[in-house]
Amino acid sequence: MQQIEKHACFGGWQEVWTHESHLLNCPMRFAVYLPPQAKERKVPVLYWLSGLTCTEQNVITKSGIQRYAAEHGIMIVAPDTSPRGESVADDAAYDLGQGASFYLNATQSPWCNHYQMYDYILHELPRLITTHFAANERKSISGHSMGGHGALVLGLRNPNDYVSVSAFSPIVSPSQVGWGQKAFTAYLGDDRAAWQQYDAVALILQGHDKKAFLVDQGLDDPFYAEQLCTQNIENACQQMHIDAQIRYHAGYDHSYYFIASWIEDHVAYHAKQLQRSIE
Amino acid sequence: MQQIEKHACFGGWQEVWTHESHLLNCPMRFAVYLPPQAKERKVPVLYWLSGLTCTEQNVITKSGIQRYAAEHGIMIVAPDTSPRGESVADDAAYDLGQGASFYLNATQSPWCNHYQMYDYILHELPRLITTHFAANERKSISGHSMGGHGALVLGLRNPNDYVSVSAFSPIVSPSQVGWGQKAFTAYLGDDRAAWQQYDAVALILQGHDKKAFLVDQGLDDPFYAEQLCTQNIENACQQMHIDAQIRYHAGYDHSYYFIASWIEDHVAYHAKQLQRSIE
Repeated sequence: MQQIEKHACFGGWQEVWTHESHLLNCPMRFAVYLPPQAKERKVPVLYWLSGLTCTEQNVITKSGIQRYAAEHGIMIVAPDTSPRGESVADDAAYDLGQGASFYLNATQSPWCNHYQMYDYILHELPRLITTHFAANERKSISGHSMGGHGALVLGLRNPNDYVSVSAFSPIVSPSQVGWGQKAFTAYLGDDRAAWQQYDAVALILQGHDKKAFLVDQGLDDPFYAEQLCTQNIENACQQMHIDAQIRYHAGYDHSYYFIASWIEDHVAYHAKQLQRSIE
Repeated sequence: MQQIEKHACFGGWQEVWTHESHLLNCPMRFAVYLPPQAKERKVPVLYWLSGLTCTEQNVITKSGIQRYAAEHGIMIVAPDTSPRGESVADDAAYDLGQGASFYLNATQSPWCNHYQMYDYILHELPRLITTHFAANERKSISGHSMGGHGALVLGLRNPNDYVSVSAFSPIVSPSQVGWGQKAFTAYLGDDRAAWQQYDAVALILQGHDKKAFLVDQGLDDPFYAEQLCTQNIENACQQMHIDAQIRYHAGYDHSYYFIASWIEDHVAYHAKQLQRSIE
């Protein structure tokens, strides 16, 4: 573990660390925001998963999340979006390989050696966080786009691990859209049955978890109609009687300007659930 | 005038435009945040000047200023930090030439053809803003580092143009420090008398304006001791009986994490003065 950035921010500290990941077989970076309350006691953690092409930097520089994390006493942990390095398989396209892990455990060569982000987010990273920082065991998860997909899938499959789940502009049914089909074919192979465990809409329809969650979607998002298909998760929730809050916002696009405008609500949503879980 | 970005943000619009500057003899970019109130009426404007190496992007992506601008109904205008382009004189160093205008009117060759940022910020840009956007004539100015210097100098020399002035981590006496001496020698020549009109501390000691202003400075800023020398402006204000608020913040550095943590206070400070000016 090596610290590579440390900045005072809203009374707490925004840090960036690097460590050798045993699961991913490469050095990994993550960002951690330590709210002022973490000086006094262990605090709950909100994990944030970013989208295609992103790193741990996007949410910490562009979203303004630290203000709300400081208000509610929540630690924010934002991992890089994939394994990286010269020895890690990659692809020239922006939507496959480094920066495009889709937060799954790859089964196909050459990806399976490093692309085990599902287990990294679920197991290795939280162990690191509770060992080295003032974090308690309570955690929630959110993310954007590909990271919104990751947050929904991790949350739906592990309801005892994540107290609450939310997403901005998530890829809700990757099996049904271009981005997901390309990535899943490469990482998981042609067997579409294997894809279902990484498809939020499929998981909901399988009855995996009935917990409510929060989704925000911009109606001027250029990926809304073809890649995100938010209506699919709304329909699945209705069918399965899940009380999800799925909000549509006229004029908003896919950028961090959208996220910055609504992230206060997400942090408050998670804070309320994280607080409730210890009452 | 050509729009190159437009994003919904906190109920308003974050836009980026390019135009042909007559004063600077090159295309220039600026960012403008239109708060929701600008749909109904003309609003006052806060100009933001960024620091060395920056563009119009830094404050709009990293500071979170839009939230507070939307709350108070203030337009934010953030120009690029210098003229740019292949025909514009430049230097390999980060602290001279493109990205390092120091917001002055250059008198020396080869800089004087394009580097007229003082007049651009004071005259050309505000005319453009009031002509093309829902802006009234009331304006204030703020900035960071080299841009904090620019805001102080423009504000002190033009008290009837700017209702209020603030700065983060400003270069308060460029004549006395390495960054300023290098830039002023190149842009203004060796005559140190010509430098005084672009030195905030010198302007205060000359009695230019007695108006209060707000400065925030991080005590862990690596440039604090050698380049910023905040104590010099505090001393000058005491000597001249100017009621400036100069605040020091333990732990904070020179980054936008510092700015994001305190910009709410700056927007509120300007909002109060901009409001008072029409009562």
